[in-house]
Amino acid sequence: MPEKVALIGSGNWGSAIATKIGVNASACADFDDKVYMWWVRPALINEKHENVIYLPGIELPHNIVACPDVATCVDGATMMVFVIPHNFLAPIVPKMEGKFAKGAIGCSLIKGIEFEKEGDMKPILISDLLQAEMKKSDGAPVVDMSVLMGANVANEVAKGDFAEATIGCTKPENGLKWCKLFNTKDFAVQAVTDVAGAELCGAMKNVVALGAGFCDGLGYGGNTKAAIIRIGLKEMQKFCKVFYGDRQIKDETFLESCGVADLVTTCFGGRNRKCADIFAKNIAAGTPKAWDVIEAEELNGQKLQGTGTAQDVMKAIKAKGVVDAFPLFSQIHKIAFEGPPSPTH
Amino acid sequence: MPEKVALIGSGNWGSAIATKIGVNASACADFDDKVYMWWVRPALINEKHENVIYLPGIELPHNIVACPDVATCVDGATMMVFVIPHNFLAPIVPKMEGKFAKGAIGCSLIKGIEFEKEGDMKPILISDLLQAEMKKSDGAPVVDMSVLMGANVANEVAKGDFAEATIGCTKPENGLKWCKLFNTKDFAVQAVTDVAGAELCGAMKNVVALGAGFCDGLGYGGNTKAAIIRIGLKEMQKFCKVFYGDRQIKDETFLESCGVADLVTTCFGGRNRKCADIFAKNIAAGTPKAWDVIEAEELNGQKLQGTGTAQDVMKAIKAKGVVDAFPLFSQIHKIAFEGPPSPTH
Repeated sequence: MPEKVALIGSGNWGSAIATKIGVNASACADFDDKVYMWWVRPALINEKHENVIYLPGIELPHNIVACPDVATCVDGATMMVFVIPHNFLAPIVPKMEGKFAKGAIGCSLIKGIEFEKEGDMKPILISDLLQAEMKKSDGAPVVDMSVLMGANVANEVAKGDFAEATIGCTKPENGLKWCKLFNTKDFAVQAVTDVAGAELCGAMKNVVALGAGFCDGLGYGGNTKAAIIRIGLKEMQKFCKVFYGDRQIKDETFLESCGVADLVTTCFGGRNRKCADIFAKNIAAGTPKAWDVIEAEELNGQKLQGTGTAQDVMKAIKAKGVVDAFPLFSQIHKIAFEGPPSPTH
Repeated sequence: MPEKVALIGSGNWGSAIATKIGVNASACADFDDKVYMWWVRPALINEKHENVIYLPGIELPHNIVACPDVATCVDGATMMVFVIPHNFLAPIVPKMEGKFAKGAIGCSLIKGIEFEKEGDMKPILISDLLQAEMKKSDGAPVVDMSVLMGANVANEVAKGDFAEATIGCTKPENGLKWCKLFNTKDFAVQAVTDVAGAELCGAMKNVVALGAGFCDGLGYGGNTKAAIIRIGLKEMQKFCKVFYGDRQIKDETFLESCGVADLVTTCFGGRNRKCADIFAKNIAAGTPKAWDVIEAEELNGQKLQGTGTAQDVMKAIKAKGVVDAFPLFSQIHKIAFEGPPSPTH
């Protein structure tokens, strides 16, 4: 039986990835041709084959069929791709109950992280949250979850510029299935059996990008920025081992697209770097500006993720008593929330 | 007995590193205060304490004493730092014969690589060449050689902007000695017992930088460039293992400053990236321009290293029969020397 694929999400990244999934589902006998994509305004996609709101100018494969009802979307699905804002999980996921196939597997493309709100302040993976939401009801199955992360500016991927990505999976055989679904000539996907490492990279890079932005804003050159990126990569690795050491964190993950490549892209482009650059310039000029003001002025309604993550990371490493092992994360937090270091430091 | 340090070289990078060595030799009882620096025009340094030709505007520590005679420079030296163009090795090194202390150790800051000219076309480390030159005469000692590599734009290091570097050494105790000599508050040096890995990174990064430049010149975005950098890092690692697998190549070397950090800096700044950007733009515009023309127009007398290294690397991997394991290096060579890939590729 061919795999039945459902795409839960239809924003910028969801639509971009639909261009790869659609092509592969058409071309490869492993997959059912039709791919349902969850969206509230299906007519646009189903008539124009274009997401004019979130990915204008890109033709979507005609076997991508939009559907406003998530239960219909995942009916009988064996492979479910999640790419929705993670605050949609709680209202949306319960509607899928009893619909997807037994033994269905899932893949999260959601970049972000949650933290426990009290006690240990432990970081929680979005893929774990998704899994927990799906098995909430009595007798609901445990869906094996993978993630897809990497240096993936959505519009460039949709245009067909060459890009790479990483699947973090629990078992190599599931990794292979996901690679087959996503991999195209211009989108090279490799699997590593390390869900936590791959997913945490996608969230932690935004903290390092704040450091890179401070560096740019203060006019430091290539040496200093390279040092921040390198030390950042090592602290990301350490963070994964400290908090998810029981989950097969692999050193090689950090040399995959989800690790070093996504970090480099984010530290040279990206909204976190940009806003931190402005933040530092304002401090240096003696006219400090709050993060939410910069966010409102620069991001056109988009949200800054690095600042919230930096605060949560700080709480987590404090609760765990490992602040000293993270000098870069600590310094970034200090600059972002306690003003610049005094000249005597 | 305190270590007696000699600095053989006085160009831009040699003068920049003198600012760190001089400070440490003064401040730390492990070292003799006076550091000889080999240069043909000693009066400039010894009177003005500034290298007005290669590092204008930076005051050198007053315990850096220039000396035009290399034999006097290394007389009784126990630690020798080499930072001269590597075509100076053959004329200069023999003049040191019988002068430096028994058991003296050396550290090469020379970035580059040689290749055997026939047969296997095997890559030869400059640090090995240096060692071989020093032991050429009957009874001459074998000098244990380390290297210092990293993301180190010389003028930024001299100015005191924060930077990191990596010592590649054969034994941890020698690595520690070198760290003590180079390490300052604004120059963080760490040792890894991997001479070949650290040194090869310093040469191979220039090949990857050509790929990054092609990417920029053709207008590809962050995803593609990040992929080139990441695949480049992996091929650098593979190259080290294929040709120097017998020399303790360590995976961690590639996450040190000599690896990922120097590569990132070179792929975003640097002359190889810049000239490759222009080379690709000219091809795309239908007005191709030869490498030596671009070099003459853009580099103000400096030399392009990546192109020669790319050609030598290609010969070496061909001779070894491992071309297929290096798709990025091969493609870079193809674009640089055989014209762009045809549209049917």
